[in-house]
Amino acid sequence: MSQKITTLFKIKYPIIQGGMVWVSGAKLAAASANAGILGLIGAGSMEPELLKKHILKAQTLTEKPFGVNLPLLYGKREEQIEIALNAGVKIFFTSAGDPKKFTKFLKDHGCVVVHVTSNPMLAKKCEDAGVDAIVAEGFEAGGHNGSEELTTMTLIPQIKKSISIPIIAAGGIGSGYSMAAAFTLGADGVQIGSRFAATQESSAHINFKQSIVQASHDSTMLSMKDLIPVRLLRNQFFQEVQNIENSPLDLEEKKRRLISLLGKGRAKRGMLEGDLLNGELEIGQVAGLIDDIPAMDECVARLIREFHHASKNLPLHFS
Amino acid sequence: MSQKITTLFKIKYPIIQGGMVWVSGAKLAAASANAGILGLIGAGSMEPELLKKHILKAQTLTEKPFGVNLPLLYGKREEQIEIALNAGVKIFFTSAGDPKKFTKFLKDHGCVVVHVTSNPMLAKKCEDAGVDAIVAEGFEAGGHNGSEELTTMTLIPQIKKSISIPIIAAGGIGSGYSMAAAFTLGADGVQIGSRFAATQESSAHINFKQSIVQASHDSTMLSMKDLIPVRLLRNQFFQEVQNIENSPLDLEEKKRRLISLLGKGRAKRGMLEGDLLNGELEIGQVAGLIDDIPAMDECVARLIREFHHASKNLPLHFS
Repeated sequence: MSQKITTLFKIKYPIIQGGMVWVSGAKLAAASANAGILGLIGAGSMEPELLKKHILKAQTLTEKPFGVNLPLLYGKREEQIEIALNAGVKIFFTSAGDPKKFTKFLKDHGCVVVHVTSNPMLAKKCEDAGVDAIVAEGFEAGGHNGSEELTTMTLIPQIKKSISIPIIAAGGIGSGYSMAAAFTLGADGVQIGSRFAATQESSAHINFKQSIVQASHDSTMLSMKDLIPVRLLRNQFFQEVQNIENSPLDLEEKKRRLISLLGKGRAKRGMLEGDLLNGELEIGQVAGLIDDIPAMDECVARLIREFHHASKNLPLHFS
Repeated sequence: MSQKITTLFKIKYPIIQGGMVWVSGAKLAAASANAGILGLIGAGSMEPELLKKHILKAQTLTEKPFGVNLPLLYGKREEQIEIALNAGVKIFFTSAGDPKKFTKFLKDHGCVVVHVTSNPMLAKKCEDAGVDAIVAEGFEAGGHNGSEELTTMTLIPQIKKSISIPIIAAGGIGSGYSMAAAFTLGADGVQIGSRFAATQESSAHINFKQSIVQASHDSTMLSMKDLIPVRLLRNQFFQEVQNIENSPLDLEEKKRRLISLLGKGRAKRGMLEGDLLNGELEIGQVAGLIDDIPAMDECVARLIREFHHASKNLPLHFS
């Protein structure tokens, strides 16, 4: 079995705790590191100073390395990178932007760089840009998502055919069973978001955590396709988005109205402040399978137990 | 490992060749049976007399049992069932309708009955209706599809939690690797469509088979969501559907125009007659991974080789 991911990040289990805006701060990243997996601080909409605070705090909570997840869409990414580098961070997961933009710079500073992709062509671009590994994220994942709508089941083997660097599968992975599935599809590791959003150490508001626990099979849907596709928990805000998308308006007018509806701080309002009606609640399809809010060490131990169970039950031969 | 599916259908490998309208006739079903898996004649739009011809022909091509796939939406299903029963068919896969409608009748006639589902609530209804197993079909599958858009990765574990009868996973399964993934997720067997559509024995027109081989990661998309969601290869007909769906018309008018555009025989025109521009070409996301047109026995042997490889490579323990 591939040791590529455990070796690359010097971790015990080939599991990445996905960077999640307003959900994965210092506490979750450190708890992940202490549980033997890679923790990521989701720098998303963080002001550079807030990111610094989270990095310094995480360093007091664990002696193990952790990383920073950086969507390249946002304005202050240069400052975020400078602060993270100065604080000693050596692992960067970038997403939502050109993988060529920062990879060489970060590699020259001795960092490990991973970029998030949702299709095999972008994965090839990432490899050409010199990243160490890619995250391949399927349609079922929470938050921002690719327009090709490739599911984890079909995405991983397609990416495997197009690149030779390590692949971290993401999207729909909430148990050791789906983790094992990702490995059989050709992944070298997994990135898990939603399952870890509903843990004790996640920064998500308790209302949001409870709504993940209560979520059913039809609780999430890919939304805002006319702007940037994002998988959301269906609430009042989601419905307002759908009303605009399904209205008989032209595309430009729809985009204007969506941007205006989104405004500022919608995600913070929902995920951090717990406004379940008017907040933006980013979560994956796998929410329908999440039934509790464990501590991270317990959650990781359970994933490994389930993985072993799945692995032992898979037959080597038929008949 | 579960022997439920091989025992239920008296087959060597726990693989079902999915019933595909205009693609899985006598030749494909018989070749499947001869290769050690369950073959299904896709009765879809067949006139009862044509179905009879296919059943009788398949019986001359194999001595093994095979089944009939029956979408319950169509008009002549009672005649189709009567003809199949009279010809000695004992295995029925039903879909797109109420599982209670024919299950008891067919069970009373000594048949094995399986119903196709795309969500855990319908799966429970199927179990309550007395079916012997269910097919759980994810968003990545070709052809008709559920409105919840649950992918195979999240669907199988959710269904596993809601029922105790055997589960046959479908959607995105085109190799022994994805087959192994389905088993780790909790499936007892797999149903494969697209991969078998591009075989020597499939009735698909050679043009359609070649377009499957040429398909890339972005070649299919879930379409006709305003009518009945169906995953299609993107061609001119697909684009005409999209133009209606994206137009500023109200839902009722969209439906009228879609029904009018669809007309009669669109699927036959595309898949059987090879009209790649104006035909309806139903195929799964996994088309992007299909590179050749093998004979069925070779195709099944390859699936099993790949499954063994995936199974051997999955570690029992981390460390």
